This record gives sequence, C-alpha cells and structure tokens, in this order.
Amino acid sequence: MKKLEPAGDPGSLRFGAYHVIFESEPGWGRIFDAVLIAAILTSVLAVLLESVPEIRLRHASALVACEWFFTALFSIEYVARLACLRNPGAYVRSFFGVVDLLSVLPAYLSLVLPGGQFLTVVRILRVVRVFRVFKLARYTSEANVLLSALYASRFKISVFLVAIVSIVVVVGSLMYLVEGPEHGFTSIPSGIYWAIVTLTTVGFGDITPQTALGRTLASAVMIMGYGIIAVPTGIITAEIAASSRASSGGAQACADCGAVDGEPDARFCRRCGAPLARKEGAS
Amino acid sequence: MKKLEPAGDPGSLRFGAYHVIFESEPGWGRIFDAVLIAAILTSVLAVLLESVPEIRLRHASALVACEWFFTALFSIEYVARLACLRNPGAYVRSFFGVVDLLSVLPAYLSLVLPGGQFLTVVRILRVVRVFRVFKLARYTSEANVLLSALYASRFKISVFLVAIVSIVVVVGSLMYLVEGPEHGFTSIPSGIYWAIVTLTTVGFGDITPQTALGRTLASAVMIMGYGIIAVPTGIITAEIAASSRASSGGAQACADCGAVDGEPDARFCRRCGAPLARKEGAS
Amino acid sequence: MKKLEPAGDPGSLRFGAYHVIFESEPGWGRIFDAVLIAAILTSVLAVLLESVPEIRLRHASALVACEWFFTALFSIEYVARLACLRNPGAYVRSFFGVVDLLSVLPAYLSLVLPGGQFLTVVRILRVVRVFRVFKLARYTSEANVLLSALYASRFKISVFLVAIVSIVVVVGSLMYLVEGPEHGFTSIPSGIYWAIVTLTTVGFGDITPQTALGRTLASAVMIMGYGIIAVPTGIITAEIAASSRASSGGAQACADCGAVDGEPDARFCRRCGAPLARKEGAS
Amino acid sequence: MKKLEPAGDPGSLRFGAYHVIFESEPGWGRIFDAVLIAAILTSVLAVLLESVPEIRLRHASALVACEWFFTALFSIEYVARLACLRNPGAYVRSFFGVVDLLSVLPAYLSLVLPGGQFLTVVRILRVVRVFRVFKLARYTSEANVLLSALYASRFKISVFLVAIVSIVVVVGSLMYLVEGPEHGFTSIPSGIYWAIVTLTTVGFGDITPQTALGRTLASAVMIMGYGIIAVPTGIITAEIAASSRASSGGAQACADCGAVDGEPDARFCRRCGAPLARKEGAS
Repeated sequence: MKKLEPAGDPGSLRFGAYHVIFESEPGWGRIFDAVLIAAILTSVLAVLLESVPEIRLRHASALVACEWFFTALFSIEYVARLACLRNPGAYVRSFFGVVDLLSVLPAYLSLVLPGGQFLTVVRILRVVRVFRVFKLARYTSEANVLLSALYASRFKISVFLVAIVSIVVVVGSLMYLVEGPEHGFTSIPSGIYWAIVTLTTVGFGDITPQTALGRTLASAVMIMGYGIIAVPTGIITAEIAASSRASSGGAQACADCGAVDGEPDARFCRRCGAPLARKEGAS
Repeated sequence: MKKLEPAGDPGSLRFGAYHVIFESEPGWGRIFDAVLIAAILTSVLAVLLESVPEIRLRHASALVACEWFFTALFSIEYVARLACLRNPGAYVRSFFGVVDLLSVLPAYLSLVLPGGQFLTVVRILRVVRVFRVFKLARYTSEANVLLSALYASRFKISVFLVAIVSIVVVVGSLMYLVEGPEHGFTSIPSGIYWAIVTLTTVGFGDITPQTALGRTLASAVMIMGYGIIAVPTGIITAEIAASSRASSGGAQACADCGAVDGEPDARFCRRCGAPLARKEGAS
Repeated sequence: MKKLEPAGDPGSLRFGAYHVIFESEPGWGRIFDAVLIAAILTSVLAVLLESVPEIRLRHASALVACEWFFTALFSIEYVARLACLRNPGAYVRSFFGVVDLLSVLPAYLSLVLPGGQFLTVVRILRVVRVFRVFKLARYTSEANVLLSALYASRFKISVFLVAIVSIVVVVGSLMYLVEGPEHGFTSIPSGIYWAIVTLTTVGFGDITPQTALGRTLASAVMIMGYGIIAVPTGIITAEIAASSRASSGGAQACADCGAVDGEPDARFCRRCGAPLARKEGAS
Repeated sequence: MKKLEPAGDPGSLRFGAYHVIFESEPGWGRIFDAVLIAAILTSVLAVLLESVPEIRLRHASALVACEWFFTALFSIEYVARLACLRNPGAYVRSFFGVVDLLSVLPAYLSLVLPGGQFLTVVRILRVVRVFRVFKLARYTSEANVLLSALYASRFKISVFLVAIVSIVVVVGSLMYLVEGPEHGFTSIPSGIYWAIVTLTTVGFGDITPQTALGRTLASAVMIMGYGIIAVPTGIITAEIAASSRASSGGAQACADCGAVDGEPDARFCRRCGAPLARKEGAS
C-alpha cells in the first residue's frame, strides 16, 4: 500500500487536519478518534436495532433520522480525509478507503434502489472501521505478535485444514450411509455439515445419530475431535510463545549486520558472529 | 486500598481478635476461617434451596429461621471486624467490606421492602466472600501467577476481543440476510447471538441454519471458531509459562541492582552486567 | 502402600506364578496380561449389552452364563493372587485388591439380594482393572509426567475452580432473575446448571435464554467461557512442558549431590556447583 | 514402501512423463498437479451433489456423464502412472496406488453390481488423493512437525485415552442408574454415548439429565471435561514447541558425528563433544 502523505506545508490547516484525522497523537487526535469510534458504534447499534421488527415499527422515523445523521457525518469525514491528503487516490484505493466509502453509500443508494436488507448488511461493515483504533502503537505491536504467529503457522494450518476437510468429507459420507435420510442425514452434504458441527465440538443437536452403529461412529469422531482441537492450539501457542520471546526485551539486533536474535541469552550474532553489544563486556 | 491496622495494643483483646479475624495464622485464626467458610457455604446453599419452588413451599419456616440465623451471625462478625480495627472506615469502603455488608442487608431490607427475588440475588453475593480463603500465602502466589498472566496479556486479549466482536457482528448480519426470520434469525441481534453461540463452540441448537447457503456459511464459522479458540489459549499459555518460569527456582535476583532474571541460565545481570551469584564460580 | 512380595523360594511354583501374575515380563507374563485384559473387556462388554432391553430379553441365558463364566475366572485369579503372595493382606487392602474383589462379588450377591441395577454398576468397575496394563515401564513414566503435571498445578487449579464456582453461582442467580421460571430457569440451581453447561461450552440447549437481556448476558458468559478455557489449558501445558523437559534426555543428575537439573544445557550443578559429567570435558 | 523409479532413460518420453506426474517440479509438473487437484475436487463435488435428492432427480444425466468423464480421466491417469514406472507393482501396492484404483473402480462396478450408496462412499475416498499436494517440500516438513509431535506423544495419548474411556464407562453407568430409561438413558451404552457427548463438550442435547442428582453429576462431569481438555492440548503443545524448535534455525548438526542438536545455544555436540561450528570462535 502506498504511504499516505499530508497535503499542505507544515503549519497549514490541511497539514494540521491530517495529523488530527490520520494520526493518533495526544490532544485533538485522541479526541477525534474517540468521537469517531463513538459515532461508529452508535450507528452500528442503530442498524442492529432497526433489524428488530418491533423497534422498526415503533421508532421508524427516529431510525431514519439517525441513519441520515451518521451518513452526513461520515460523508463530511470522508471528504475531510480526501482534502488533507497529497495523494487522495491512494487513500480511495486502500482497504480503509473502500470501507469508509461503503459506510456512506447505502443511504444514498437507498434513494434509488429498493433492496433494503442487502444495504443493511453493507452498513454493518462500518464495524470494521473500529480497527482504526489499532493504529495506537501499543496495540499495533500486540496485534503484530498475533498476526505474525498466525502467519508463521500458515503452512501448518493449511496442512491441518486439508486434513480436517478430508476427515469431515469421509465421516459425513459414512454417517449418510449408516444413518440415512430417515434420521436427518438427507444427503452427503448434510452429513458433512453434521461432521463439522460435531468435530468442532459445537454440537447443535439439530441432526443426531439414532442407530447404535451411528452413535459408535459419532463417539469415535467426538473423541478424535477432542484430541484434534489440541493441534491448532499447539501450533498457535508454540508460535505465540516464540514471537513473544522475540518481541520482548530478550531480542537484540546485531550492530554489524542487523540480524535480530530472539534468544535472550545470545552473546554473538547468529548470522555474522560479531559479539552482541548488550553482554559484550560480560565474558 | 489503605492497609487495615489492628486497634488496641499488642496483648489486648482487640489486638488478639484482629489476628484471629483478619489473619490466617495457625490455631484460632484457622479455626475462625474454617467456621466462616462453612457458614458462608451453608447460607448460600440455603438461598439456592429457597429458590426451588417445592422446597420453598415445604420448608418455608425452616428457611426463614436459617436466613435470620446467618444474618445474625454475619452481623456479629461485621461488628467484630469494625471493632478490632484502628481504621474501620477503610474496611467499610474496601471491596470485602462492601461484600460483607451486602451479606447482611437483604434480610433487614426484606422487613421494609417487598421485592424478594432481587434481594435473593444480593444474598448470593455472599459466595464471593469465599475468596478470603486466598489470603493463605500458597494460594496468593498461585493466584498472582494467574492474574499476572492475564494482566500481561490484556492488550493481546483486547485486540482479540475487538476482532471477535467484529466477526460476530458481520457473520450475524450475513446469517440474518441468508436465513431470514422464517428460520429463527428474526433480527441482526439474534443473528449475532447465534454467531456467538456458534463461534464459542457452545452450540445450543435453539437457532440453527436450514438452507444450504446458511449451513455452508455456518461450517466456515465453526472451523474458524475451532482455529480461533487456539489464539486466547496460546496467549495465556505463553504468559503462564513465562511467569511460572520467573517465579520458579530458575529466577535469580542480582545482588548489585536487584533486577530479577527469569532465564535460568543467565550468568550476568541483564540490567547492570554484574555476574550473578549462583553460577559465579562456574566459568 | 506396602510392597507386595512373592511367596515361596526362587524356583518354586508360587514364586514363578508371582512373576507371571504380578509382573509384566516378556513370555508368560505378557500372555497372562493380554488374556486378562481381553477377559476384562469382554466381561464389561457383556454388562453393557445386558443393559440394552432388546438384547437382555433375547439373549438372557447366554448373558447369565457369560457372567458366571467371568465370575469364576476372576475368582480363580483372585485366589491365585492371594496364594502366591507372602503378604496377601497387603494386597487385599490395596486399591487393586478391592477392585478385584468388587469384580466378583456382584454375581455372588445377586444370589441373595434383588437390586439388579446397582450391582450392574459395581460390575462396570471392572473396567478400572484395565489400568493394570500401565505397570509397563514405558506407560508408567508417561503417566507420571501427566500426573506430576496435574499435581504441580493443584493449587492453581484450586484457585481456578473456586473462581469458576463463584462465577457460575452469580451468573446462574442473575439468569434466574432475568429469565425466570417461564423460560426454563425454574430455580437458582437450574440457573447454575445452565451456567455450567454454557461456560464449559457444552451447550445442551435444553434450557436457553429467550429475552434480549438474557441473551446479552449469555453472550457475555460465552465469550468469557471462551477466554477462561484458556486458563486450565495454559496451566497444564506449562507444567507438561516443564516436566517433559525434566524427564527427557536433557535432565542430568549431579554426581556429587544428586540434584537433577532439567535444563539440558546446564554445565554445573545448580545446587552444589560441581561440574556435570556429561559436558565436563567440553569447556 | 519401495521407492518408485522412472522407466526409460533420461531424455525419453516415459522418463519425462515420470517427472511431470510423480514429481512436483515447476513447469509442467505444477500444471499437472493443479489440473489433477481441480479434477479431484470437481468429481468429489459431483458425488456430493448427486447425494442430494432434488439435484439427483433434476440433473440425473449430467451427473452420470460427469461421473464417466472423471472415471475416464482418472483411468487414463492410472494407466499413465503404471506406464512411466520401472516398478509399477510397487505403485499398485502403495497406499496412493490403492486409492487411485478405488477412484475408478466404482463406476465400472456399478455396471455389474446394484448397491449404489456403498459405491458412492468409495468414490468419496477420492478426496484423500488431495494429499498428494503435500509432496511439495514446504508442506512435507510442516506435516512432519505435526506428525512427529503426534508420534512423540503416542504413549501419553494412549494413557489419556484409556483414562477417558474408563471415565465415560463409569459415568455412563452411573447416569443410567440415576436417570433411568424414562429420561432417555435407555441403556448403559446410551449413558456412555451421553458421557462422551458431554465430556468432549459437544453437547447435542438429544439426551439430557432431568433429575437434581443427574444434573449435579452432569455438572461435575462438565467441569471435569473442561479441565481434562487441557491435557491433550498440553501434551501436543509441548511436543510441537519442542519439534518446532528442533526444526527451526536453532538446530545445528555436528560436523564430526552428524548428531542434530535442537538447543539453539548448544556449543558442543551432545553426542561426541566436538565444538559446534557456528559458535566455535565465540568462546
């Protein structure tokens, strides 16, 4: 993603507005963030309430007014974001640029188009904007630990997911064969749905095995699921432990080659062999 | 919280009572604790039984007598706590002071006010008083390991919770759109409720998807929930492992600057560089 | 538990029988174990099948014959165990001695007493005898890792359990207040039962909240349960990792003072400072 | 498993075909893999759709055509695999050889035999062929970490499984005794089925305790299950962490004896004592 740059010179109004809107500095920046998040949460709450039939009937006009109020507010915010950037195009094409636009479009579209329910869900996407709060440094580093743990585990997780999908396809087919349509297993896909519900230990109970053979097979699947749930947990835990260690005080960068060593007791760079500064005088 | 201090001089009755009531020393202190916990558990059990219609009808008078017996007992205990403190005000305003007062108030209030059910729940709060048992040193240190692990993870957990809330809001809206009111998804909030029930693998089964598209989406959510449950586990496990290691024999304090090093094989203080005593003679 | 000792001199029949029955040596000892486990599992299976009404009606005489066959077999085994021990009293009072006696008693008691169902459950206890297989050295050490991890975590788990019990009591009372008897929450104990079903993510769905407030509270409990499940996992994982490391090849005992060091890279005894043999010549 | 070897000389058509079909090299090898996986997934999807009654009735001829198309394709592939191997017999007897044969047999058998549903499930086994994708080196090493973690935990998991089975047998019998047939616990096996559903936190809700004693026992089982789920997670997590560490950059092979040391800070070979190259100049 191209870096967003402020328009105007330092000291100008647009430059100042950039820092208030896009950064999260103490003072007006923090206040702007707080107001924005409050507005987002209130507008999402309004959408939620509007979907409840009783509330929609009784408070129709208030909800319409509320929706137009927030649409106006977010429209102004969107224009302000465009105005204080040197490269507004980069913002428009960025992930948050698209989300910000989708926050205001539904109200305008509802003037021309009928399909209310679909537009409602688009408006719900506003909730994603709350993630802006994570530009705060403290959260960014924590989010990075989580994301890098997930990223480092992506191959292990892929292997695991393919195994899970194969298991639920085979188990679902077997249950369809064993239980049959008369016990709710109307097709192989519904058997697969049951296998996923069971293996993930969700267990809705809308489809359940009734025959002795089906229950025995189900028991095996449940105990297997109980053991299998340990695998992703183990993968993620091992990675989080590793990346926590790396991002804590223990990690140290080599002054010569810049390689970062996550082992807190490393005394020499693992890449170039130069002594690491911190414990240089120790031996 | 201001420290509670005993009233009276060492050797006086009030000073002795302070140690019996507030400390957990062998002898009378332990006996007092055991009696108190037995009384708390019995009174909570009485409240539980009183809420069962059949028992309330049959044993009404016994339950009322029981309630007044424990109210009298806890009132005496509350007055005794006040009496043996130099600064009773600090106790009254402390967390346990409020809980202790709430333990006896409902019975007195029931003489004036009608609303029985609400007062019942207030009386249930007595169960919180059981946590006094954790003043025992062994438990305090273990509870601290757990609490410090949770505290150290608070930013990671916040990031995780915001992500979960966003996911359930978006998934709940989609399911409302896909399944609609005729399959139990009467509004977006009920869709969100379903998403939480499913993602946490609780799976009540009071609302379940019936359409092929809804079941496919539900399957994706369940497999996602299966993977996501690994994240908080990974966060907490990594922290517990770290704080266990730090509080176990492996940790060593530097004699020069007092910094504690959790790495069991550290040979030099990570803060001031002085050799650590334990393995000083080893190299 | 007093150690069991073989009766008779080495070379005698009883001495040989002791090794076959009580030890798990290659040859007759292994064969005896395999036959015993097969007999236990078959007899348990017979008890299970007997409880199914259709099977009990159709195969009544076969099941009775089966039960008496295994009772005779286990009686002979019990007498043989008594006969080849120098101290049979220690065996009779040991855990497995009691379980072995309980395996044969129900059949004899059923000749005098009527209460069939209760005796059936006593016969089910035979399944515990399968744990004898764990006298094999490989399994004993693994079971010890698990048990020592659980034992080392006992204080943390106690703290955790008291916290869970307090939470479910308070949540169960609140749900009773919010939902009331008309939605299945007929008393505080049933509210607590619902809270346990929900917090542990079991989610039967026999009692579910119907009101908006109840569902909101339930959502909070479910997300909390999702996070809380991480705590015991973290406790046990940290302990298993620690005790695995200690019992793996990395651990080394000091030749001077006998202290065992779980850190695989320890080069000096952590208690007495003497160099450890394995890497002595390395520095 | 005997190693598969290409037929023909380097440069010949059969030698080239071997590399395209059995290896996963960039170029034609990758394209072949992608086409094969697409064909497998499409044919599995066709089998799934065929099991849905509405789709089977409406698109009968298209599904038959589709099935014969993929049967032809996989038959050609099977013959091609045989043709380009020096030792086709080893392939025929290998796991994937059997699976490949089972992918094409059902269509030919359906010409002679009636039993449609059973053959359907055999065709579903095609999904297992997707695992061929894991011949890619990156996935193989990750899959090996998972498999070696599971393999290293096999004794611990056996102990755990025997304990679980004993617990569910005893708990299931008790619930049968307490609740009885009138609340759905029609036999001990159905009690055991309920115990597995509950202990694994699946919780279908098709059988639920109704009596106070049954619910109390169920609560104990659920809290126990909540704690027990931590055990396999702990086992697997500890192993994955250990084998990740061993397979990550921290591991180093001794230049003298070839032993691999997973401890990243090892400075001397743990087997022969020779200094390890990486940090040789460091001390």
